[in-house]
Amino acid sequence: MSKELLVKIALNSWEIQIKRTDQLVAELTDEQLAQEVAPGRNSGTYLLGHLAAVHDAMNDILGLGESKYPSLYHAFVKHGDKSGLETPTVQELRKIWAEVNEDLWNRMKSLPAEEWLKRHTKMTDEDFGKDPERNKLSVLLNRTNHVSYHLGQMVFLKKK
Amino acid sequence: MSKELLVKIALNSWEIQIKRTDQLVAELTDEQLAQEVAPGRNSGTYLLGHLAAVHDAMNDILGLGESKYPSLYHAFVKHGDKSGLETPTVQELRKIWAEVNEDLWNRMKSLPAEEWLKRHTKMTDEDFGKDPERNKLSVLLNRTNHVSYHLGQMVFLKKK
Repeated sequence: MSKELLVKIALNSWEIQIKRTDQLVAELTDEQLAQEVAPGRNSGTYLLGHLAAVHDAMNDILGLGESKYPSLYHAFVKHGDKSGLETPTVQELRKIWAEVNEDLWNRMKSLPAEEWLKRHTKMTDEDFGKDPERNKLSVLLNRTNHVSYHLGQMVFLKKK
Repeated sequence: MSKELLVKIALNSWEIQIKRTDQLVAELTDEQLAQEVAPGRNSGTYLLGHLAAVHDAMNDILGLGESKYPSLYHAFVKHGDKSGLETPTVQELRKIWAEVNEDLWNRMKSLPAEEWLKRHTKMTDEDFGKDPERNKLSVLLNRTNHVSYHLGQMVFLKKK
């Protein structure tokens, strides 16, 4: 019982950050999203693509299914902003962002509590034996912090 | 066993964010910290005071003891940056930041797993009965995201 509750709280924390980011992205125009969050820093569009790519890749890391947009990972994680690589338009990115999070959320919330204590797919059984704290839940908390980190930056795109 | 592990992972997640912030703050000069993180936004000094105040207040919220710096809460949470209120110097803030986090960490890591499932002190028993997900662990995860959010902003103080 208490184990389920602990996992539920971690999922709530993720959901809260996604909703806050959704709300911000909905408030921003395409033009605002295309701006740099601070002089010489990443654009909002890049960060949106970056977050979508990282969340899409969580499917694979958590063993929930294949990631759907490996090309996004290439453009928005392996490469930095202004790489010159072809990327989706802002409007396409908005759709991908919503779709990726919805799919991931449906899968994550169906995962039994016990599963969150198991190793994630980027670890070997041997490594996991040495460090059982690097489980699926640790990936979830890490990625929740990652959204918060970039949300704190993207919020600068709003007019003061 | 698994309950203890889940709590440990949440504490690890907090510790990682604090260490990342410590490292950034150590890298920045007092002059860099005094700058705004982006044009017209909060200064690094303000955000450092803000985080120290919020963490100090966690002692009270989590029932770990009294907060030690209520005046910080007044200047850095109740009021915004450039309020004109008297605040500690940057060097004093660096010490307070380290001290607050060390005290809080020692208390949090001694708290038994079962305690993290109990209500935090800002909730009544009645409200908690209706919503048992708003427990101490939810406060910890919320505040971990909060550090990440502002860390994402403070990182802009580093020269490119």
